Amino acid sequence: MPHNFPELKNDLFLRALKGEEVERPPVWMMRQAGRYLPQYMTLRKKYTFFERVETPELACEITLQPIDELEPDAAIIFSDILTIPQALGIDVDLVKGKGPVLENNIKTEDDAFSILAEDVPQKLDHVMKAITLTRHELNGRVPLIGFGGAPWTLFCYMVQGEGSKTFDKAKSFLFQHPDAARHVMKELTKATIDYLNAQVDAGAQAIQLFDSWSGLLSPDDFNEWALPYLMEITKAVKGVPVILFAKGSWYALERLSYKSGASALGIDWTISPEFAREKTRNEITLQGNFDPTRLLSPIPEIKKLTKRMIDRFGTQKYIANLGHGILPNIPVDHARAFVDTVKEYGSEM
Amino acid sequence: MPHNFPELKNDLFLRALKGEEVERPPVWMMRQAGRYLPQYMTLRKKYTFFERVETPELACEITLQPIDELEPDAAIIFSDILTIPQALGIDVDLVKGKGPVLENNIKTEDDAFSILAEDVPQKLDHVMKAITLTRHELNGRVPLIGFGGAPWTLFCYMVQGEGSKTFDKAKSFLFQHPDAARHVMKELTKATIDYLNAQVDAGAQAIQLFDSWSGLLSPDDFNEWALPYLMEITKAVKGVPVILFAKGSWYALERLSYKSGASALGIDWTISPEFAREKTRNEITLQGNFDPTRLLSPIPEIKKLTKRMIDRFGTQKYIANLGHGILPNIPVDHARAFVDTVKEYGSEM
Repeated sequence: MPHNFPELKNDLFLRALKGEEVERPPVWMMRQAGRYLPQYMTLRKKYTFFERVETPELACEITLQPIDELEPDAAIIFSDILTIPQALGIDVDLVKGKGPVLENNIKTEDDAFSILAEDVPQKLDHVMKAITLTRHELNGRVPLIGFGGAPWTLFCYMVQGEGSKTFDKAKSFLFQHPDAARHVMKELTKATIDYLNAQVDAGAQAIQLFDSWSGLLSPDDFNEWALPYLMEITKAVKGVPVILFAKGSWYALERLSYKSGASALGIDWTISPEFAREKTRNEITLQGNFDPTRLLSPIPEIKKLTKRMIDRFGTQKYIANLGHGILPNIPVDHARAFVDTVKEYGSEM
Repeated sequence: MPHNFPELKNDLFLRALKGEEVERPPVWMMRQAGRYLPQYMTLRKKYTFFERVETPELACEITLQPIDELEPDAAIIFSDILTIPQALGIDVDLVKGKGPVLENNIKTEDDAFSILAEDVPQKLDHVMKAITLTRHELNGRVPLIGFGGAPWTLFCYMVQGEGSKTFDKAKSFLFQHPDAARHVMKELTKATIDYLNAQVDAGAQAIQLFDSWSGLLSPDDFNEWALPYLMEITKAVKGVPVILFAKGSWYALERLSYKSGASALGIDWTISPEFAREKTRNEITLQGNFDPTRLLSPIPEIKKLTKRMIDRFGTQKYIANLGHGILPNIPVDHARAFVDTVKEYGSEM
C-alpha cells in the first residue's frame, strides 16, 4: 500500500525504540492532544467527542495541535481505546463529568459469547484515514504513533459499563465465568491485531498498547488474563516497534521485558527508574514516568524533577514521557517546560 | 484506666504480631463487619451510617456480627477513617451510590491553615465508648483492633471532597501549596496520635493505620508526604502493636519494615508473598493478601487459592487477611470458606 509519505526529518523517537544511540532522549506526552490545550477546547465546543474521533480531518488537526504548540518528538493519532468495543457492537457514550458509558455492556455469559471480531478494520476505517492524512500533514516532522487498548482493559469497560476505581463487576465476571471471559479476550485479541496492523498499513510508524487497568490484577491473574494476550498482539504487529504500557503492573516488568516481544515498556510514576532498569536488565527501551500531577508544580521545580528523571533513567534506551496521560488542568507553559527541559538536556550532553 | 476486661482466650493474632510461634496463622478480614452480612443490612435499613458509627451500642453490635457468624481471630471496631476530618470541622456526608462527600473541603491555603487538631479524643468519645463496650461484650473471645486513617489518605479526602480514582485535586494542592499541605499533615498527625492512644486507653489491643491512597504517590513523594507521618504516628502509639497498611506502596516495603516501628505490614494482592518476604527480609509479620474479588470464585477455588497463599507466605509471622476490604456482593459462605480454610490449615500442621 504505497502512500508516498514525506521523508522523516526527526527519527530520534524511532532510534530510541530500536535501542540505537541518540544525541538526547526523545520526548512526547501521553494524551498530548487534549483538554489542557486551548486550541483543543475550541474544537471541543464545536464537535462531540465521537465527531472529533470519527472525522479524519478533525482527528488529524487535533493530532497536530501539540506538535505545533510544543514540538515533541512524536505524534500520537487522536482516537480512543473504546473504538474496538464499538466495532464489536458495544455502544459507547461519553457523559460529561462521568466519562465513558457503555450501554449494552456484557452482563451474562450469552452476552460474552455473542462478541465476535468481524471486519474490525473496515468498521474503523475512519481511524486509518485519519492516520494516512496525518502522516501527510505531519510532513515528516516527527513519527506518528498508532495505538489500541489491551484486551484486559477493554474487557474491564465492556463488562463494567463505565469507568471504575476497582472494576469490581469486570473482575467478578472474570472469576465467575472464566470460559466466557476467555472467549471475549480471544476475540478482543483478534480484533486488536487486525486493527493495529491496519493502522500500520495506513501509516502508523510505531504502536502503543495501553493496558490501563492491568494493575488491578494480582501477578498470577496478570499472567493468566493479561500477559498472554499482550504477547500475542505484540508479536503479531508487523513491521513497526510496539510500546507496551501495563500501568500499575510493576511486578511484570521482568516478564514483559524478555517475553513480550515489545520494543519498549511504559513505566508509571510509582516505579523508580532504578527498579525499572534493574528488572529489565537495561536491555529494553523504557518510556516514562513523570507524575502528571507534578506538572502543577512551579516551573523551576518541573525542570529540576525532569532533569533528575533523565539522570536516573539515563539518556540511552529511554523516551521521556509522563507516567500517565496529561491532566486537563495543566497550564500549557508547564507542559512546555517539561518538553523543553528534555530537549535542552541534549545540549548539555 | 482500669476496665476489668474479661481475660483473652484466643491470643493467636497478638502472638503473630509479636512474631511468636503460632500453631496456625490467625485470620480476619478487612471490613469484615459490612454489607455482605445480612444482619448488617438489617441494621443498615434502620439507622444511617453515622448513627451506626456514633452509637456505641450499634457499633459494638456490628463489630460482633462477623465474630458470631464467621469466628475469625480478631475483631475490628466498626467505625470510619473520616471521623478525624469530622473532628477537625470538615462535614462528612455519605451519599448513596457515590460514597463520602465532604462539603466544606479544603480549597485554599487559608482553609488548610485553619485546620487545628484540638480535643480530638473528646470529640470522638463515642468511638472510645464503643471500644470499651465491645471489649466487654467480646468477653475475651478475640482481641479488638482499633484503627485510623493515615494523614496522606485523610488529606486526600479533605481536599478532594469525595472519593476519586486519582485524587487529582488533592495532589494538585500538595504540589501547588506544599507549606499549607504540610500544616494539614502535621495537624492530622497530632490528631491521629491523640485519637489512637485514646483508643488504646479505651481498650484497643492493636492498632491498624490505613494509608489507602499512598499508592498514588511516587516513591520520592511517598518518602516526603507519607512515610514521616506514618513513622511519627506508629512510634507514638503506646503499648500495643501497630499494623501499617500502605496500599499500593509496594516500593516502600523495605523502608516500612525497618524504619516505621510497626509490628506488621499490610500487603495488597498485587504484591507476591515472595516479593514481600524478600523486601522485608522475613523480619516482620505480614498481613494479607487475598484479592477480595477472588471471593467470588467457586468455593473449591477459594480454598485452593487460600491454601496456596499460606504456603507462600508461610505459617509464622503471618496474619491471613484479604488484600483490601471485603466487597458487599460476597456470599457469606464464600467468606466462611476463606476463614475456615485458614483455620483448617492449622490442623494439617
